Amino acid sequence: MMDDTTQREPSLLPHDDTRGSSMSQVSKRNLYYLGPQGSFTHQAAVAASRALAGLSNEIIPVTQTTIPQIMAHVRDGDGWGVIAWENNVEGYVVPNLDMMIDADDVVGFAHVGVDVAFDAFVPNGSLERGVVPHEATAHPHGLAQCQRFIAQRHLSLMPATSNAAACRDVRDGQVALGPSICGELYHLDTLGHDVQDYHGARTEFLVLARRDDAPDLIAKAKADGRTEFETIISFIPLSTGPGVLANLLDVLRDAGINMTSFISRPIKGHAGTYSFVAAVDAAPWQPHFRHVLTEVVEHGDWVKTLAVYPRRERPNPPVNEWMLPQGGVCFTAETIPPAWDGTPEAARELLW
Amino acid sequence: MMDDTTQREPSLLPHDDTRGSSMSQVSKRNLYYLGPQGSFTHQAAVAASRALAGLSNEIIPVTQTTIPQIMAHVRDGDGWGVIAWENNVEGYVVPNLDMMIDADDVVGFAHVGVDVAFDAFVPNGSLERGVVPHEATAHPHGLAQCQRFIAQRHLSLMPATSNAAACRDVRDGQVALGPSICGELYHLDTLGHDVQDYHGARTEFLVLARRDDAPDLIAKAKADGRTEFETIISFIPLSTGPGVLANLLDVLRDAGINMTSFISRPIKGHAGTYSFVAAVDAAPWQPHFRHVLTEVVEHGDWVKTLAVYPRRERPNPPVNEWMLPQGGVCFTAETIPPAWDGTPEAARELLW
Repeated sequence: MMDDTTQREPSLLPHDDTRGSSMSQVSKRNLYYLGPQGSFTHQAAVAASRALAGLSNEIIPVTQTTIPQIMAHVRDGDGWGVIAWENNVEGYVVPNLDMMIDADDVVGFAHVGVDVAFDAFVPNGSLERGVVPHEATAHPHGLAQCQRFIAQRHLSLMPATSNAAACRDVRDGQVALGPSICGELYHLDTLGHDVQDYHGARTEFLVLARRDDAPDLIAKAKADGRTEFETIISFIPLSTGPGVLANLLDVLRDAGINMTSFISRPIKGHAGTYSFVAAVDAAPWQPHFRHVLTEVVEHGDWVKTLAVYPRRERPNPPVNEWMLPQGGVCFTAETIPPAWDGTPEAARELLW
Repeated sequence: MMDDTTQREPSLLPHDDTRGSSMSQVSKRNLYYLGPQGSFTHQAAVAASRALAGLSNEIIPVTQTTIPQIMAHVRDGDGWGVIAWENNVEGYVVPNLDMMIDADDVVGFAHVGVDVAFDAFVPNGSLERGVVPHEATAHPHGLAQCQRFIAQRHLSLMPATSNAAACRDVRDGQVALGPSICGELYHLDTLGHDVQDYHGARTEFLVLARRDDAPDLIAKAKADGRTEFETIISFIPLSTGPGVLANLLDVLRDAGINMTSFISRPIKGHAGTYSFVAAVDAAPWQPHFRHVLTEVVEHGDWVKTLAVYPRRERPNPPVNEWMLPQGGVCFTAETIPPAWDGTPEAARELLW
């Protein structure tokens, strides 16, 4: 369960697949996502409802029009939610991150990833009727992400409010560009798979539950054989100035905890104040990480766990010279020239 | 010069305002920005061309269709560029940040901010002709950001590929929503100012020059009386694992250097590898910061300065309890209960 493989051809009715789990199950569970139907988040909801099938007999993706509506449903114990968290090209989905920092009663307990891949759709039977498309329709971002396909077919552009709306409303003579889920959802014919210019973009989503339900959900993941977890944690040092962050990270280092991502954010509505969000390879109940959290709280800082979920397989390659960006300054002990800091190259790269 | 005030009613022809500077000036300078004309980035380019008027007799905003085109012009010494860097709601513009990390010969030397504010435009003379608008047109993001205005006037939605295109192509019966610059640019009548739902969104832009030209530009800013600078710096530790970031930040702390923002990014194309980008209140030529950079390089890490620009006025308030997000755990030395770490509240907020 809770794998993060992409669901290329999702079934819109999640499997009733309990995979031999002996856990007692809630019979039905709503999973709220940001619509419209046919969005990448819908695709993530379908992927999550499959991945989490061991936790409920039936997980039903339910569309919402705003993230606060999703948060309210989850907080009220009225189901789970799924929100976009991070994209490997665009970075964190910062408004959702800010909302999770400030959410009183909502926590992430699972994780799914979806490839940002576009299929090209035409109305059902359109090709058999001999219709030749002359226009591409999608959200402007979708149009921008499929420029090569559009140019090859000499299509003109028709922007839509969303990729899903473009697919839903596609007419003869148009090609709608959207997530693969739209084909099944709107009974469209698929003209092409993966027609986006850039391959490899991926969005990671968090699955949310009421905070009080999280321990039970985590226990089920453990019972299902998951032993390693990741945690997303938020800190606010109440002091400011040089060193507050260094002092905080020293505590993590001294405990041997590996961070996999880190970001600072202004506290909502208070420019010049900062919260920090870190993803770490540890679970809060592990003694070494619990010790860190205790120490940070007793130092007077504000701390909150935003999510705990089974660890994803991630590469962890060493950084080699050929991976480094262009420019910059970098020497090994063997290659460092004498008086390197007086060279024009150092001045150029460091601007000192 | 180089202030970051918003240009609400920009002149499209920048002032020839040398403010008594005795610097020798290049007579003309292209300033490349991401189009279309009438985008928020165009507005930033106009603001920058005013703020930097002391550096050139004439700064001419020139539209480009991609960021790589802008970078190429700057690298070739063919003018300056302006790119979006950070938004207070959405966070860093990560693709631009990644591009700057990897740019061999481009560096930021100035900084401008633009409010994300929408004006509502109708075709010139439309109101006098008695036309009542029934439709709102903008990029879907623009439509989403002006929902209250649209609902109050019972307008239907007509998505466009960009706000600027919506303004350029606005017809009788439509209201186009876009940056204030579009009014002058497309000779439109303004139906309302600042019609966006959320006030306070702001995007910060970097102005870019060829790296070899930066020292001269910085010297001119100093000659113009600017004494305090901020630096955006990128680090890549060649080792990985617990503590690499803490060790790096210890060096900054020990030098008394204040960081104002911090983010980790995977090295482009190498999942699981990390670069770090920090904004600090110091200039690389100041001895204490130069010492830090020297120490980090001699430790074997990769270092590059991405931008140096005159310091912005920023608030730096202490964090008070009422500023803290909902939930979480936070005690002062006076309020900390005995055995707090065994309480259900601690378990709930920290998930241990």
